[in-house]
Amino acid sequence: MAVHEAGHALVAALSERADPVAKVTILSRGAALGATEQLPEFERHLHPESYLTASLAVRLGGRAAEIVVLAEPSTGSASDLAGATELATHMVREWGFSATVGPISYGPEGPSRDNPFAGRPYAEETQRSIDQEVARLLRDAEDTATKLLRDHRQTLDRVIDLLLERETIDGSDLAAIVGAPGAADHEPAGGPLALTMTAIPGAQRRDQRGKRDR
Amino acid sequence: MAVHEAGHALVAALSERADPVAKVTILSRGAALGATEQLPEFERHLHPESYLTASLAVRLGGRAAEIVVLAEPSTGSASDLAGATELATHMVREWGFSATVGPISYGPEGPSRDNPFAGRPYAEETQRSIDQEVARLLRDAEDTATKLLRDHRQTLDRVIDLLLERETIDGSDLAAIVGAPGAADHEPAGGPLALTMTAIPGAQRRDQRGKRDR
Amino acid sequence: MAVHEAGHALVAALSERADPVAKVTILSRGAALGATEQLPEFERHLHPESYLTASLAVRLGGRAAEIVVLAEPSTGSASDLAGATELATHMVREWGFSATVGPISYGPEGPSRDNPFAGRPYAEETQRSIDQEVARLLRDAEDTATKLLRDHRQTLDRVIDLLLERETIDGSDLAAIVGAPGAADHEPAGGPLALTMTAIPGAQRRDQRGKRDR
Amino acid sequence: MAVHEAGHALVAALSERADPVAKVTILSRGAALGATEQLPEFERHLHPESYLTASLAVRLGGRAAEIVVLAEPSTGSASDLAGATELATHMVREWGFSATVGPISYGPEGPSRDNPFAGRPYAEETQRSIDQEVARLLRDAEDTATKLLRDHRQTLDRVIDLLLERETIDGSDLAAIVGAPGAADHEPAGGPLALTMTAIPGAQRRDQRGKRDR
Amino acid sequence: MAVHEAGHALVAALSERADPVAKVTILSRGAALGATEQLPEFERHLHPESYLTASLAVRLGGRAAEIVVLAEPSTGSASDLAGATELATHMVREWGFSATVGPISYGPEGPSRDNPFAGRPYAEETQRSIDQEVARLLRDAEDTATKLLRDHRQTLDRVIDLLLERETIDGSDLAAIVGAPGAADHEPAGGPLALTMTAIPGAQRRDQRGKRDR
Amino acid sequence: MAVHEAGHALVAALSERADPVAKVTILSRGAALGATEQLPEFERHLHPESYLTASLAVRLGGRAAEIVVLAEPSTGSASDLAGATELATHMVREWGFSATVGPISYGPEGPSRDNPFAGRPYAEETQRSIDQEVARLLRDAEDTATKLLRDHRQTLDRVIDLLLERETIDGSDLAAIVGAPGAADHEPAGGPLALTMTAIPGAQRRDQRGKRDR
Repeated sequence: MAVHEAGHALVAALSERADPVAKVTILSRGAALGATEQLPEFERHLHPESYLTASLAVRLGGRAAEIVVLAEPSTGSASDLAGATELATHMVREWGFSATVGPISYGPEGPSRDNPFAGRPYAEETQRSIDQEVARLLRDAEDTATKLLRDHRQTLDRVIDLLLERETIDGSDLAAIVGAPGAADHEPAGGPLALTMTAIPGAQRRDQRGKRDR
Repeated sequence: MAVHEAGHALVAALSERADPVAKVTILSRGAALGATEQLPEFERHLHPESYLTASLAVRLGGRAAEIVVLAEPSTGSASDLAGATELATHMVREWGFSATVGPISYGPEGPSRDNPFAGRPYAEETQRSIDQEVARLLRDAEDTATKLLRDHRQTLDRVIDLLLERETIDGSDLAAIVGAPGAADHEPAGGPLALTMTAIPGAQRRDQRGKRDR
Repeated sequence: MAVHEAGHALVAALSERADPVAKVTILSRGAALGATEQLPEFERHLHPESYLTASLAVRLGGRAAEIVVLAEPSTGSASDLAGATELATHMVREWGFSATVGPISYGPEGPSRDNPFAGRPYAEETQRSIDQEVARLLRDAEDTATKLLRDHRQTLDRVIDLLLERETIDGSDLAAIVGAPGAADHEPAGGPLALTMTAIPGAQRRDQRGKRDR
Repeated sequence: MAVHEAGHALVAALSERADPVAKVTILSRGAALGATEQLPEFERHLHPESYLTASLAVRLGGRAAEIVVLAEPSTGSASDLAGATELATHMVREWGFSATVGPISYGPEGPSRDNPFAGRPYAEETQRSIDQEVARLLRDAEDTATKLLRDHRQTLDRVIDLLLERETIDGSDLAAIVGAPGAADHEPAGGPLALTMTAIPGAQRRDQRGKRDR
Repeated sequence: MAVHEAGHALVAALSERADPVAKVTILSRGAALGATEQLPEFERHLHPESYLTASLAVRLGGRAAEIVVLAEPSTGSASDLAGATELATHMVREWGFSATVGPISYGPEGPSRDNPFAGRPYAEETQRSIDQEVARLLRDAEDTATKLLRDHRQTLDRVIDLLLERETIDGSDLAAIVGAPGAADHEPAGGPLALTMTAIPGAQRRDQRGKRDR
Repeated sequence: MAVHEAGHALVAALSERADPVAKVTILSRGAALGATEQLPEFERHLHPESYLTASLAVRLGGRAAEIVVLAEPSTGSASDLAGATELATHMVREWGFSATVGPISYGPEGPSRDNPFAGRPYAEETQRSIDQEVARLLRDAEDTATKLLRDHRQTLDRVIDLLLERETIDGSDLAAIVGAPGAADHEPAGGPLALTMTAIPGAQRRDQRGKRDR
């Protein structure tokens, strides 16, 4: 878990456009084995493209750290992948952030409780193009995260060690290692807190003693 | 928001076939962060193709202004893209305005509450052709809007500045900058008002103090 | 409207196989902005292929006139396109009038209220072939109508002028201009009247003063 | 109608494997404008492939006669095409009579009242192959019928004339013209009567005076 | 019927891996026009691939005999084809018996009463590959059966003659002709009896006098 | 059964990353004809990729043993194939373990009782890519298992003989043959027990005398 959470936190701390890190923990709570919290610097209504691209890299930071440190990914990134895929899909299908797909919005994805009869209102070929762009955004985000972590491998190891030692660290601890300002230095803007949790895939609720494995 | 609304308003003011602009505002109301209103010069029953093509460019004017001024689009065009996509789809599927698809009407898009069993009554390949034409209309509209705004960059900056200063301007203010007549110079024809609102994607209703960010 | 209705009427009057024109009007009634009525010369049970091909050209005559006279089509042909598409689809799918698709009948188009579970009982590729033939029939019909109207451009202008002057003309008026016999010269055969109405797309019912625009 | 019914009857009379003709009529009854009846020579439980191939040609005989005599088909073959398509589909999908599709049975065609959830249990490509074979069987049947009628054009004209004169003829009348035995020469075997009716497509029930057109 | 049942019986008797034949009859019972019964030599829980391949050949033996003796198949193999297709589909989709499809199981075929929402959980391309393998297994089985019967044509004729003479024969009669042991020589193992019945396609229940045709 | 269970057990015992074997039996219980139990060495929350790859090989070990020893697979691997396919599908669709498909999660597979309207939210082409990767993982697992068993053929035969002799063996028996430690040498970690059972496909519950066949 320390490897995984250190990945999220360090990618966030190193990405200029990402919200600053407020807290990182490897103490498990319920089904969550660990968590990284970010606090936005100011309240946003509209998100520029580059802010969202940085968000994707932070989400894939845990998996990137596993690949960099342990040489193979684990099932621990299941919920990160699901969240990042959902965001990337919005970016391509509805917000016009893919040059290939273009300035177009394909609306909600087919049938829902409110509109049970809606089908897919566009062609397979269009969906294929959307899929390719979504996959590209995610690969790019993994590449960005992996490269950042390889370039700062020693910093990553220091974050992992501190997490294993203290189990929870905050933005200023991270800033001290990375040399970048943490969220603690900001007045929180009151916007929604970005929380990346690492869950046991399909986990049932179980006792909540602190656990860790590296 | 000033950049975005100035884009809508200026593309409308500069398009010969578009309805004249009546009011532009960056004061937020509910989920709407800003709005541009156009008033038709006379009541129309049937819309010629060129009128609808101009409407698409006005819709994409906000996004075009973000690209021209801020160098990247934001999620602020989500509802513009949805509306423009819907209009372009009607043009291609039902009104015969695509030379590639031809003089044909493919009827409503599959199942609805009234006709829950309707499927897609034509082939994937046909849908693909429709999708390509819809995407082409939207790209053409973005290109038209972007080119108009780049060609009138100084005028655009003046509209943005005036919006930031006064928060709401009307057709005659815009006309004074652009040198084109505003809707205020016309007797309104009683037709439906074309209103382009910029909404927070997925926004919940919140307090309504005036807000702006550039 | 005068341009549009004159197109329907003149294509009907000039097509040997089409039913003769009984009345043409640009007076609006409810959602209908104008109408062209044809009266069959005798009661038919079975329709030969050439009779149906002429019907398609009459349906597309309004759009053809807009293209010939105004240089661009309008949304005024929406219901003409829908009707012509439906007829052309029957010709190809059920009546064996396409050499490419062949002497075959693909039955009703999927699920309906009576048979909610019916799917498409043939392949995508077959539907694609049907779509291509339907589109071809409609393009051919548009070409036929456009060519007829270009070849008789002066006659077309005279019909438009008469419609603008009198708002409603009958078959003998038309015959006087065209030099072809009108339906008024026939004893009506009692068959169903072919009525081509031009509706406001998605129009709500409104007051019914006579309106026209050219 | 005389042309159409004469086509069914003559193809049946000239096909060695087809059941003999019992009666042909161009008197309309309800929605039926005419009919050709065949009586099986003996009771069959299992149908050999060649018997079914001949049945297809008889079904398409009406359309073939229209093409041979009138140079264009009419909507009068709508129900013949529907019936022949259904039979050809069984031959290919369920009875193994296509060398291309092979000795295989694809079961009933998707969902039904009894099994509303059944989907198509095979691939698009397979359906495409089925469609091509069904279309081939029908084209072959049309070719067979057209060739038979062209080869016996004078006989065909004689059958048409007799039908126009008497409105109803029986198997022995037909045999006298064709020189082949009619069903009247057989003791009926008690099997199901093969009845080919020509209906007005989508016809509503109307008065039942005898009608004909050639 | 004698030809058809003799085919089933002889392929079973000649296939080393097939269960021995217990009884063959051409007496019709209800909708069944004839039947061939096989009795397993011992109780099986797991079926090796070669046992199932032999079962397919026995199923297609009736059709193979029609082709060998009568030169064309009939609708009498409809239920054989349905059963053989179902078995071959299990072999390919669920039991891993196709080298092309591989060691994989695609689970039940889409929606059912218990799970009405299940869709096809794999790609068209995969279904296409499954279809090709199912068709190949059936063609191979037909080839095997046809070759066996051609190689033992005189034996086949003798079985047909005996069936026509006695209407029902048992395993020892068959063994006497073929020179192979019948099921009667075994102590039945109590396993399920493999029964191949030949039904009238879509037959309604009718009187049950013995009938036959060759 | 001995061949099949010996395959599961020996692949597990020989795979470094697999959980140790606790018990192997060919005594049937209910529909299960045999079973192999593995006990995890320690409690895992997150599974690394290599652990899951080894699990697939263990699942396909029964089939691999049939191919190595009996030269053909049987229907006895039906439930192994279903389980292995399900696991491989999770690996590719949700956990990002395919380089071809990439770091992406496609969420649950279409409609379910809780969300009956969900369709497949991605393209055919993407599903095809998923299918190819799932099939590749399973082929690789079969190859791994087959190679392991061929390389240790004598050990395999010894495990089979011991199973036939004693019907049930435990981890230490297996360890004695293989020379690797069994689960019995570990303190069980309390994690979920991995149980591979071999069931009669579609079996109904029957009496439970011990049965075996080799």
